[in-house]
Amino acid sequence: FLSYTIDEYLLDTNLSLSSLTASRRGLPQKKMSENGISRPKVLTLDTMNPTVKMVEYAVRGPIVQRAVELEKELSEGIEKPFTEVIKANIGDAQAMGQQPITFFRQVLALCSYPELLNLDNTFPEDAKNRARLILQSCGGSSLGAYSPSQGIDYVRQDVANYIERRDGGVPCDPDNIYLTTGASDGITTILKLLVCGQGIDRTGVMISIPQYPLYSAALAELGAVQINYFLNEDNCWSMDIQELQRAVNEARQHCHPRALCIINPGNPTGQVQSRDCIEDVIRFAAKERLFLMADEVYQDNVYAEGCKFHSFKKVLFEMGPEYSETVELASFHSTSKCYMGECGFRGGYMEVINMDDDVKSQLTKLVSVRLCSPVPGQALMDLVVNPPQPGEPSYNCFIKERTATLSALAEKAKLTEKILNTVPGIRCNPVQGAMYSFPCITIPDKAIKEALEKGQQPDMFYCMTMLEETGICLVPGSGFGQKRINEGFVVMTILPPIDKLTILLNKVKEFHQRFTKQYS
Amino acid sequence: FLSYTIDEYLLDTNLSLSSLTASRRGLPQKKMSENGISRPKVLTLDTMNPTVKMVEYAVRGPIVQRAVELEKELSEGIEKPFTEVIKANIGDAQAMGQQPITFFRQVLALCSYPELLNLDNTFPEDAKNRARLILQSCGGSSLGAYSPSQGIDYVRQDVANYIERRDGGVPCDPDNIYLTTGASDGITTILKLLVCGQGIDRTGVMISIPQYPLYSAALAELGAVQINYFLNEDNCWSMDIQELQRAVNEARQHCHPRALCIINPGNPTGQVQSRDCIEDVIRFAAKERLFLMADEVYQDNVYAEGCKFHSFKKVLFEMGPEYSETVELASFHSTSKCYMGECGFRGGYMEVINMDDDVKSQLTKLVSVRLCSPVPGQALMDLVVNPPQPGEPSYNCFIKERTATLSALAEKAKLTEKILNTVPGIRCNPVQGAMYSFPCITIPDKAIKEALEKGQQPDMFYCMTMLEETGICLVPGSGFGQKRINEGFVVMTILPPIDKLTILLNKVKEFHQRFTKQYS
Repeated sequence: FLSYTIDEYLLDTNLSLSSLTASRRGLPQKKMSENGISRPKVLTLDTMNPTVKMVEYAVRGPIVQRAVELEKELSEGIEKPFTEVIKANIGDAQAMGQQPITFFRQVLALCSYPELLNLDNTFPEDAKNRARLILQSCGGSSLGAYSPSQGIDYVRQDVANYIERRDGGVPCDPDNIYLTTGASDGITTILKLLVCGQGIDRTGVMISIPQYPLYSAALAELGAVQINYFLNEDNCWSMDIQELQRAVNEARQHCHPRALCIINPGNPTGQVQSRDCIEDVIRFAAKERLFLMADEVYQDNVYAEGCKFHSFKKVLFEMGPEYSETVELASFHSTSKCYMGECGFRGGYMEVINMDDDVKSQLTKLVSVRLCSPVPGQALMDLVVNPPQPGEPSYNCFIKERTATLSALAEKAKLTEKILNTVPGIRCNPVQGAMYSFPCITIPDKAIKEALEKGQQPDMFYCMTMLEETGICLVPGSGFGQKRINEGFVVMTILPPIDKLTILLNKVKEFHQRFTKQYS
Repeated sequence: FLSYTIDEYLLDTNLSLSSLTASRRGLPQKKMSENGISRPKVLTLDTMNPTVKMVEYAVRGPIVQRAVELEKELSEGIEKPFTEVIKANIGDAQAMGQQPITFFRQVLALCSYPELLNLDNTFPEDAKNRARLILQSCGGSSLGAYSPSQGIDYVRQDVANYIERRDGGVPCDPDNIYLTTGASDGITTILKLLVCGQGIDRTGVMISIPQYPLYSAALAELGAVQINYFLNEDNCWSMDIQELQRAVNEARQHCHPRALCIINPGNPTGQVQSRDCIEDVIRFAAKERLFLMADEVYQDNVYAEGCKFHSFKKVLFEMGPEYSETVELASFHSTSKCYMGECGFRGGYMEVINMDDDVKSQLTKLVSVRLCSPVPGQALMDLVVNPPQPGEPSYNCFIKERTATLSALAEKAKLTEKILNTVPGIRCNPVQGAMYSFPCITIPDKAIKEALEKGQQPDMFYCMTMLEETGICLVPGSGFGQKRINEGFVVMTILPPIDKLTILLNKVKEFHQRFTKQYS
């Protein structure tokens, strides 16, 4: 069964999830109510939007649903071979115990309930001042008013200042800044603008494999063509221009490639791109006429020695007007990652460079339909891009908290790589940045066979078995597009506290050894 | 020029906005950079998603953009015939000075910065307790963690309890509750599920005219067919089954009608539907096999004597199992309206009734791509559905604040109707509920002619002139689908404080008299 791909096998055996769904379609759609009245449903799997059905989202897929069930079973006192479910599937830092930055939360509390501005000695003066500035920039001086659709002017100005500082003075126009509901919102909005055409003219969008499943999900929903380019595992998941060229050439046979998405630092692969590589990518995009989308939400999460974050915008502008005045770029940031980990607030921004003015008007119109992104998230984005400065009362505390979080992440990145690489049958690239390891797992033939007989991807079978036996929830790499015949990959965050992460990694090690033995 | 419709005229004169855009398309797309390098843009009006171009959103359209410009000009010291721009175009209560509910904001502050739980005498005990309960229900006890995609379990349970209380005990399953990013998010999500088919099989969705422009915008973006049914101005903007029947019959000639949207209390027309009418609508939906979407965000905003809010769900269940077990319904609520006016937090929920289980799984998957709705908004939704109870420390203050806001709104509803109806050439139905008046304006022939020569809808011309002369920003009814030959409509919120609203209404009166005289 190894002579063809696993997807083909699953298709043949008619056991894949989608075919299970298909067989369900044979059921009569009419349902009888208890008193015998029948009326067919308006909305069924058969009659719903077919593009929605195509959407897959591994990060919150069946394995996470099972993890939630197991948590419930544990809380109901049902005995398990473990006492706790550890969800290492998603970059949810605060759920893993990371503490928020004190200054940020003080300002948010003051903005939420401005009566607190009258308290003495409870809040530092800089937190109070900032809350006043944010409130002044809100309608009715309240977080409860709508903001302009593009975001609060004051916040967009602070974002622009931040980008200029970050990029060594490259100018940033606040009119190019859009505040978003997390980075996902910005990414899907730009993709939405880009999609058009039918058949061979259909918009194709290049995404890295392994990918973050938001991209495949958004493209499926929009009915765009997903163009895969593979990252190079042998070179620490780097981007390779020859591979980009191969992907775009092949894609031109059946669609119209119009955009290139890059995640840097990488999710889920943790690589940090070199300046040279970014320059090559920009040149490639210019040559192939691709709109660049740079997902840079992990811009502070760089751990490996010799690695540094370079923003696509900075490199673009350093390449001179041939590029800086022509290449279209959207870059995305968020309050959810880096040292903040404020996922729940759904704050974010995007900057658009060289976007056609008419298209920008269309973008502004499009975002206005949702009225505005959450104002508390906008306020938080402001604090992230304009944190306490030296000499201000909150500065020392802020630096201490930020450094502690980032140092711990760097330590955990090393620890993960180190422990995983001690396990025969597991190999793991250095986690240069971001919040995940993406180790390769050798899966024994017998286990692959059993998985396929169950209609599962082998790495899904591996992860499900691990979850049932250890309570550890990882995500199979196949959900991120990474599929090989006899190797699987898994995504594991490095977010748990060090002591817990050590236990977790050793449990993974023990499990892998047991699993390998069992199926040898 | 009154012998055909205004749209036809604008089409003929080639002066409409869309034709202006079209003429722009003739421009060369290549732009030269300063040093002579040319590279055509990837993304232009010609090459962008055509469905996005079709989207219109009057509430934040050109008139609001002009209002923002005027504000800027005023702040720069440029002289105007007014000293302040009053944006009466959108239901943004707190921007108009409405104060938030103290208890809500106290709990949000405590949740944002839990250190405050240690303060003595600053917060009432019930606010502290509630903050603890909400935090316990969050990952890592923090608003900064992602919630489950469907929303925090604890909040969904509180929502279910609220709905049961509101609907006199009709059961509500928390599994049917999805927390959303405002109601707009829920509405577009359900519409997204419903859209499929091509040509005559394309999904059609019935919306009221006048409508809230979110509906037309979302349908345009999804490429669904908008089916207009007209509300009856002569009967206080009531829904009329014969009109629904006409609309659906005509639509069946060219599309597949699958859903019926109702806004009750009405936006922008302020009507409150009678229980009988709702029953008729449900019967009609069952007969015509339409999925019902009930936008009930103004459920607490009922002012007129003899009017009462009836939820579609309650009526559905009172009609017995023939309906309650078969008719598919999604209903929407939000933190943005009623007495709360917390628009900026983007909180909301939807309840789905009789939705096919497989479709529900698809819905859950679809919402999971955006990870979760903003957690502060979820917390706020919890407070709205479970406010302080009698005997609790915050109860009296809560009741006082809520009553003050709702009584003031009721008074402003009456005041608006009263003053507007004293003006010859303006007629205004009673504002039974919601937050808007939608008066009919007689526009003199000369003014219509001048508008059309400028390529504007006459009501847009009227509103623009009013804005430039008085600083008052209203929205033309044509943006809400209401177009007549020699009458225009305008949308005006009733939200400004009473003294300001009185001044505003009198200014509108004076303006209308002046305008009528000028163009007679």
